[in-house]
Order: sequence, then C-alpha cells, then structure tokens
Amino acid sequence: MLIPEVPSISDAQLSARLQARIDSKTKPLGALGKLEVLAHRIGCILGSEEPVLREPQMLVCAADHGLAANGVSAYPSDVTWQMVENFLAGGAAVSVLARQNGLALTVADCGVAREIPPREQAQGAPRLVSCRVAAGTQDASAGPAMSMAQCAQAVDNGRKIVQGMPGNALLLGEMGIGNTSVASLLLARLGGVPLADCTGAGTGLNAEGVARKRKVLEAALAANADAREPMQALAALGGFEVATLTGAVLQAAAERRVIVVDGFITTAAVLVASRLQPAVLERCVFAHRSGEPGHAHMLRLLNGEALLDMGLRLGEGSGAALAWPLLLSACAFLREMASFESAGVDGSHAA
Amino acid sequence: MLIPEVPSISDAQLSARLQARIDSKTKPLGALGKLEVLAHRIGCILGSEEPVLREPQMLVCAADHGLAANGVSAYPSDVTWQMVENFLAGGAAVSVLARQNGLALTVADCGVAREIPPREQAQGAPRLVSCRVAAGTQDASAGPAMSMAQCAQAVDNGRKIVQGMPGNALLLGEMGIGNTSVASLLLARLGGVPLADCTGAGTGLNAEGVARKRKVLEAALAANADAREPMQALAALGGFEVATLTGAVLQAAAERRVIVVDGFITTAAVLVASRLQPAVLERCVFAHRSGEPGHAHMLRLLNGEALLDMGLRLGEGSGAALAWPLLLSACAFLREMASFESAGVDGSHAA
Repeated sequence: MLIPEVPSISDAQLSARLQARIDSKTKPLGALGKLEVLAHRIGCILGSEEPVLREPQMLVCAADHGLAANGVSAYPSDVTWQMVENFLAGGAAVSVLARQNGLALTVADCGVAREIPPREQAQGAPRLVSCRVAAGTQDASAGPAMSMAQCAQAVDNGRKIVQGMPGNALLLGEMGIGNTSVASLLLARLGGVPLADCTGAGTGLNAEGVARKRKVLEAALAANADAREPMQALAALGGFEVATLTGAVLQAAAERRVIVVDGFITTAAVLVASRLQPAVLERCVFAHRSGEPGHAHMLRLLNGEALLDMGLRLGEGSGAALAWPLLLSACAFLREMASFESAGVDGSHAA
Repeated sequence: MLIPEVPSISDAQLSARLQARIDSKTKPLGALGKLEVLAHRIGCILGSEEPVLREPQMLVCAADHGLAANGVSAYPSDVTWQMVENFLAGGAAVSVLARQNGLALTVADCGVAREIPPREQAQGAPRLVSCRVAAGTQDASAGPAMSMAQCAQAVDNGRKIVQGMPGNALLLGEMGIGNTSVASLLLARLGGVPLADCTGAGTGLNAEGVARKRKVLEAALAANADAREPMQALAALGGFEVATLTGAVLQAAAERRVIVVDGFITTAAVLVASRLQPAVLERCVFAHRSGEPGHAHMLRLLNGEALLDMGLRLGEGSGAALAWPLLLSACAFLREMASFESAGVDGSHAA
C-alpha cells in the first residue's frame, strides 16, 4: 500500500459544462487566455462548475545530500538548516509570500544533516514536522543515495503529512543544498534528456562550477546505472525531500487536491509520481517556468504549461506562492462573472 | 496648465540602497528574477526602501468611436454601454478581479454613445464618474476624431479624476468598442510601426475582418496626415477614453503614484503621455503582454517589460488586476524578508 491508486478524473460532461460556462461569460471567446485554461482545470480537479479553493497548504520539504560534498552547489550544506530556521522564523521568501497569500506553511525536516529542534508553534506561525529518515543521503556519485527502505519511508512520510492536512489545495516547496543536482539526475534518468541539457547553475555556480557539477552527475548516473524504474531511480539518485514530496503528490492526487507545483525540484517529484501514477498530472498546476534550464525540458516531458515566467530560480515554493492569486482569480471569474444573458450584453458576434 | 510637469525621479543613491537591500536578502543574488526588478522600481517610485502600496485605484475609462461604424470590431458599439453597466453591476471580469484584489473601482463615462445614467453608489461598490465630452467621437477615417478642444477637455478630465483619488497606485483599464483601432493608429503614427504590424483581431475578427479593419485604419491615417505631434495625433486618431487615460497617467506620474498599465489600449495612452513627458515611464509597471500583436511593438518602444504573458486580450484592466498581487509580493519581500546577517544564514558564496 505504498503507492495509492490515482484514477483518472477525466469527465467529458463536466469538461463540456465548464467550457460552456467559461464561454458564456461576458468577454470575447478565449479573451482571458491561460486563466481560462486554469479555471477549466481547477473545475475538473474539484469536480465543480463553481470551484472554491479552501485552506491552501504550502508544504516545504527539506533535506541534505551526500552529493553536496563534491561541490555541486554554490553554498555549503549548512545553509539547509539555516534556511529551515529562517522559514520557521518567518524571514525567508516563502515565509513572507505564504503570509501575504494566506497559505498555511508546513516545513518538513525530511533528513537535514543537522536536526531541526522541535519548538512551540505560535498560532498562525509556520509549523515544523519532523520526519527525518537520516541525517542526509549518501553520496550518489559513489552509490545509491538511499536504500529502497529509506526511500519507501520518505514517500510514506509525504503521504501521511498530506493525509493530515485540511483544505483542497497543496502547494509544493523545497530546500536542500545540492537538490538541483537531484532534479537533474532524475530528469536525465527518467526523461532520457542528455545531462548537458539538465544541468544548470543552481543557486549561482559559475561556468567552471557547472562543469564540475556535470562531472559529478555523470559519475552518479554511472554509479547507479541499474536504477531505471521510477522508485529505484528515486532511491538511487534522489533526496529525502524529493521522495517525501513524491509521496505528498501521490496522496494529494489520490485525494483530488489541486497541486500547485513550484520549480525544478518539485517538478522532479511530480515527474517521479507521474511515472508511478500518470493521472497525478490531471491534478497539477505548474506555477512558473524556472530560470534553471532543465525545468523547461521537464515541463515539456509532462505537457505542463507554466503560469508565470519571471526568471525565478529560488525554489522554496516561492513561485507557487506567487502564482496562487491567479488560481483564486480563475475560480472567482468562473463563479462570479455574469453571462451575456444575465448581464443583458449583446453577445452576437460579427466578424 | 494642460500638461503637468513630470520631473525625473532618478536617484542614484536610493537606487543603490534599494539594490543593496534586495541583494542582502536570504536568497541567491537575482534568484527572484523579475520580482526583484519590480521591487526596485516600486521603491524608486515611492521613494522608499520599505514601500507600502496604499488604497489602490482601478480607473476604467469608457467611450465610443465613430470609427466603429466601419466594422472595425467584432461587436457593435452598443456593447460599450452594456459592458459599462456590467462593470457597475459587478459582473464583468474587471469587477470580479478588482473585488478579489481589494481594488477600488471607478468607471468613467468619457463619451459613451448612450449616456450612462447616474445612480446611487452602494458602499464599496464600483463608482461611476460622468465626464462625457460628447456621445462618441467622429469617424477618424473621414477626419479628426475630436477637436483639439475636446481632446484637451478629456485629458483634463483624466487629471481631475486622479487628483481626487486616495492612495498611491493607479491601475488603468478601458472599454470602448473599436478602441484597438485607436491604439493601432497611435502606434503607427507616433511609433512609426507599419500598420500591418499594428493591426490585430481585437475582440475576435476573422482574417477578412482584420483586412477590412486595416483598410479603415489606412484611411484614418490618410485623413489625418498632418496630425503628427502627440496631442494632435491623440485628437485626430484617439478616443475620449484614451485621452482621459492620458491625462490620468500624466497626473498620476506627477503625483508619483505607481501606474499599473494593462494591455494594448492603456499602453497607447502611456505612449502618448510619454511623448509629452518622458519621465512618466519611470512610474509605470507593465502588467502583461497582450495577445493583441501590436502590444509587443508598443512595449518595445517604451522599453517596457511585462510581468505576465498569459495570452490575455480582454482589456478592461483585467491584466492589471491579475498582476496586482505581484506588486504586493515585491513590496512584501523588500520589507519583510530577513537579510543573511539578521537570519544568521551563511551567505558566503563559492562558485
């Protein structure tokens, strides 16, 4: 019972009713562009022509990576726990944007090298969940990053976190020095994209650093050449936060929540989840296209069209939080806009 | 005193302090992409390193166009007053999006063919301002759309509306069947862009309709061949709503408000205003790139980079309203994010 069933929610009748409703609104056909596609999708996910998004949950999963010892990031691994503390203290980008947008923020220590100590949670403040599998993964350039048992535990942790959450929308975020490397490896292995196209500057490597990173990633693919099935690849190449997010995506999809995907790393979790249960993609909204070059490849693989394209490359869930008001707008126009008929507007359309 | 002085607000010291503040935040340099540029701009406009947007005002200017009798739009002119009624009744896209985002909505009848009758305004409901210059413009394909006196009156109306508004941010919207034609004409005349590149489908013309529209626009340029200065071109080719918006932009810029520009038609008003007072552009934020092809040319002319690119082509101010939360996010991160120092995060950056 590790992987939940995620049946297709495709419903031709609901889809047609939603489109008719969108087209009846007082605007030229298609004039709200991607917002119309978004409204249609949310309506399909929530099974309603008048969808209401309730109690949105931002889940930020954090962990450390053995791979980081090889200099694949511009920052040291210590920054992972420091940033988790920053999330919880309210000073990080995702903390600020979640507060602005009324998103409940949960930060999960999925395996940060230095354990995040539990603390009192003030009303409305970010919540810490401890679901540590280990103090960081092993170095994937020398062998599997995790055992299959560890990977299964992390996936299960993600499922359990989501099971306990209220609301009908899950926004995904992450933190983990070295985790663009994990996303690049999963894209290369599961997507068949050449490593050169998967590897970017992450938090700010220079050209020399990117070249070094690519060498380390080549070694990791070679050291885990047999790990080709999705769960195997996730265990061999992945991180605890990516595995936890994979479980969260599967559970949220099974519960028919709207899943708001952030950037390169959270999309990697969706990639893995979609290889296990393809219908998870029906529940996903891709918030933005990251400045990290591999993300465009990943979105293409998943047929995902991003809402924003603002050159963001921070992660944390910052892009998901920034896009959130667009989801509210999509639902608002679907629920509240007048039709040509109800408003007495002449919809007869010449050419 | 028709055109206010709009001095440059360029301030190298403030600009440097803002950039240093942005760069001190707990994120890799530049990792918030366009949101950082936006934060810097708002800080410069409001003259603050901790900018706060207050009481945002959405101003939707509406009018009719003599040109519309030539079949330049997919909809009849009657739709202008019908949609204004829809704005006021709360059922149009801009009504819904303004409500969602806490934007006070003012709808100005700048010269709708059928006068919008005054009414009681409920608390918080959209407000109607009557500043009619005439019941629609003359047909620009046969001569000037307005006299210079009418144009001056409309510009002055826009200034007065903004003078009476609270807050420090103005969002621009418009309604007027036929007004993509006006924007195309102003782009061709003031921007020197070939008419073929300026002319699109508007609210939904087919190819034949676009060809017909282009012929009408050619006739309008020929009939007003001498109108080459900005105010002359605005009078000869423009609409009352575009002229009123031009005045609103000039006044808002003079008062150093943040001006959130919507799509093709409101950008045309900014184009005219910027030819009169170039420093208005320092106060502008371009909300989105419209699906109407002329808009990309116009943005290039104005060095404007749009926040959203969602294939919107509705107008009304809908794109400005959709982008508004990004402005709030930009200010929030600038004000509330921790610095590397304050959060105790290791900002030393390897490569």
